[in-house]
Amino acid sequence: MSRNILLIGAGKSSSYLIDYFLDKSEKENLHLTIGDINPKSIPDKIKSHPRCKPLLLDVFNDTQRLETIKQADIVVSMLPARFHMKVANDCILHNKHLVTASYVSDEIKKLDKKAKEKGLVFMNEIGVDPGIDHMSAMEILDAIREKGGKILLFESFTGGLVAPESDNNQWHYKFTWNPRNVVTAGQGGTAKFIQEDTYKYIPYHNLFRRTEFLDIEGYGKFEAYANRDSLNYREAYGLADILTLYRGTMRRVGFSKAWNIFVQLGMTDDSYSIENSEGMTYREFMNLFLPYSPTDSIELKLRHYLKIDQDDLIWEKLLELNLFDSSKTLSLKNATPAQLLQKILEDSWTLQKGEKDMIVMYHKFGYEINGVKQQIDTNMVVIGKDRVYTAMSKTVGLPVAIATLLILNKKITTPGVQIPITKEIYQPILKELKEHDISFNSRDVPYMGYNPDAITD
Amino acid sequence: MSRNILLIGAGKSSSYLIDYFLDKSEKENLHLTIGDINPKSIPDKIKSHPRCKPLLLDVFNDTQRLETIKQADIVVSMLPARFHMKVANDCILHNKHLVTASYVSDEIKKLDKKAKEKGLVFMNEIGVDPGIDHMSAMEILDAIREKGGKILLFESFTGGLVAPESDNNQWHYKFTWNPRNVVTAGQGGTAKFIQEDTYKYIPYHNLFRRTEFLDIEGYGKFEAYANRDSLNYREAYGLADILTLYRGTMRRVGFSKAWNIFVQLGMTDDSYSIENSEGMTYREFMNLFLPYSPTDSIELKLRHYLKIDQDDLIWEKLLELNLFDSSKTLSLKNATPAQLLQKILEDSWTLQKGEKDMIVMYHKFGYEINGVKQQIDTNMVVIGKDRVYTAMSKTVGLPVAIATLLILNKKITTPGVQIPITKEIYQPILKELKEHDISFNSRDVPYMGYNPDAITD
Repeated sequence: MSRNILLIGAGKSSSYLIDYFLDKSEKENLHLTIGDINPKSIPDKIKSHPRCKPLLLDVFNDTQRLETIKQADIVVSMLPARFHMKVANDCILHNKHLVTASYVSDEIKKLDKKAKEKGLVFMNEIGVDPGIDHMSAMEILDAIREKGGKILLFESFTGGLVAPESDNNQWHYKFTWNPRNVVTAGQGGTAKFIQEDTYKYIPYHNLFRRTEFLDIEGYGKFEAYANRDSLNYREAYGLADILTLYRGTMRRVGFSKAWNIFVQLGMTDDSYSIENSEGMTYREFMNLFLPYSPTDSIELKLRHYLKIDQDDLIWEKLLELNLFDSSKTLSLKNATPAQLLQKILEDSWTLQKGEKDMIVMYHKFGYEINGVKQQIDTNMVVIGKDRVYTAMSKTVGLPVAIATLLILNKKITTPGVQIPITKEIYQPILKELKEHDISFNSRDVPYMGYNPDAITD
Repeated sequence: MSRNILLIGAGKSSSYLIDYFLDKSEKENLHLTIGDINPKSIPDKIKSHPRCKPLLLDVFNDTQRLETIKQADIVVSMLPARFHMKVANDCILHNKHLVTASYVSDEIKKLDKKAKEKGLVFMNEIGVDPGIDHMSAMEILDAIREKGGKILLFESFTGGLVAPESDNNQWHYKFTWNPRNVVTAGQGGTAKFIQEDTYKYIPYHNLFRRTEFLDIEGYGKFEAYANRDSLNYREAYGLADILTLYRGTMRRVGFSKAWNIFVQLGMTDDSYSIENSEGMTYREFMNLFLPYSPTDSIELKLRHYLKIDQDDLIWEKLLELNLFDSSKTLSLKNATPAQLLQKILEDSWTLQKGEKDMIVMYHKFGYEINGVKQQIDTNMVVIGKDRVYTAMSKTVGLPVAIATLLILNKKITTPGVQIPITKEIYQPILKELKEHDISFNSRDVPYMGYNPDAITD
């Protein structure tokens, strides 16, 4: 009997996801319905596939949404997170499993009891970050604990970057995901983590000045700044007594120090509008955040304000973005500083035809076993094929797709609202991801941690 | 016929306010009812006054509140601003005038039509800042405009500080008002102002690094950081076309640079709780905001993190507050960083018996008349008598009291929700304030503004 998968929202990250379902559609007897507000944007190659049915679906049309979901055997929602609830409620009503790559919201969490009662799997956070990070971390953490080890340290870092072969700007960065999230990254709360059993707090305006360095063989040096939510998964991962717990975002070395200029000036602020933003030059935009002077140049005011040395290479990064240009103008009306900055960055940081992105992930696991402290470092690097088949869409889409089929085939059966942290989920998914060249390198390293005992000289 | 004034809330700032009413009670035939949740705290001298009636009033008791307001001829609310609405609605219901020293909230503003229909004066922002600042500014602005002058620049600064004779700490600062507001000052929005027809924006984390200097003869130098709301009164003051508009808060020179350390560390954050704050030492509190190190001292970590030179006098300011002390402990449970910092500051910054506070205000008015640019600077200094009869309670309480009596005596009659910016209000009040030694010095100075024309070399 054929099974119907309903995919709602066919955006940037769905290329690998859709291909996976269609490639398996014969063998697994699948039919894929793609419901999107703009089905025209779905490539002809996909639309013309005999087992694919594109559909104009407006998720705000309750009747249509409910009717469409009723006909599915499982629902995959790739909508923006704030729209999942409408879909989730319908899934409860009509007894459908649900898969999303988004963070579990408080609202969704409340459906846990109902989902369990009805035996429905509501799988969330099964993209790359969150997603592959959960699964790859839990695999090692479980293995250490099964050997009798006690976890002392867990640090986890992920970055969506530009591939080395397409890395042709001074920031070593291009947008590979929602640019808005990149511009406002780190806002909305103090970063919290634990180092050697001491809580640490970093306010937003210092976030990009407290970076750590990481090395990945063959790919060189990276840096990472702290995520807000390092402590969120302490319970779920079973790390209540851990000494060091840190989650971070990876960038190429030098990015954060330069980005900090925007933070310091207030250019990443998304909380108020600039009345006269339309028609403003890039140079005038910059001047909004600098003291008034009848004589001094914007350049000198900025150097003095933020104490940027005359020979600091940060300056080249700013020039590259044309931030002092008085011929380039902004076309956004009543825009926030963050929106205007995003516009300026998009000039320089958009993936061009043929350019590739890269996803990097790095975990550190410190543990003690039989009185000996040890450490395992693991890392993953995925390079995109082009700007449609990106590493981002691969690492987000494949775990979603694999999980969906596993649920459909009753390989994943534990009901309820959940994230992929149990063996039932991560073992088969990580195994299949390897076949798609999404895999981790692992090596034992001396346990350094942040522990005084580890310092020998 | 005797008139009943109802004062709701007899807190810190009510000493001068109450004395004013009682001093005039015979001559003006006034009766004063003081409704407070804790009437025991009202001094006996006041409670025993024949024309004073203290009352245990719970503003959340709708029946009692309504009944009490019904019996008044005019109501003065000195409650925290968020409680005014309950009182204001009753005033509309029973046709009572209302006076408060608080900012006009959006809620209160909505009562304007009803107040006007019923001929009720709802006077707000009639303390010191807001209050005396409005009145003293409008007096000069109106005078300049009546002479045919065009306003080019208006800058206004106020500070609640410690009097020179009681200034015995390195910050040259003590709490003279709600300490919480001092610790969180500047948060909740970017500071916005206009300099030479250019909008300027300062994010919170740079607010205390962009100060201006001010001199008051006989009192020395002050500094000022920008208020969030410089543009709020542009319309009300009739300054739509002004080139420079800036409002600021005054401190003694050096305060802001040192305060910036707390801002940079994140110690003024009031948005999250520190789980294990109870019993934490001052030193441990400081360490929450510094990188982990197994060997380096908190002192060196702080110096390095914020680039504080070994001989910077800022350091003495920190030592004075015992911030590195590992014997002093914090007693607050699950407190925010701001609450903990406030606790530490209260050790050192509380007015002691016999100590005096000081209110300073400074306005600059730049204008052009007959093609000539000119400037008037005015300033006010008020020194408190002691820690009950403070300059703060005098400059807040007297304008409130004077306005109340003027409304009662039908000298102020224009109805509606308003602030004191019209002649009907500011002329008699400023005149009477002079009799209480609250007055402004004024001098003509060369117009400097921020204008290139003014630079002669």
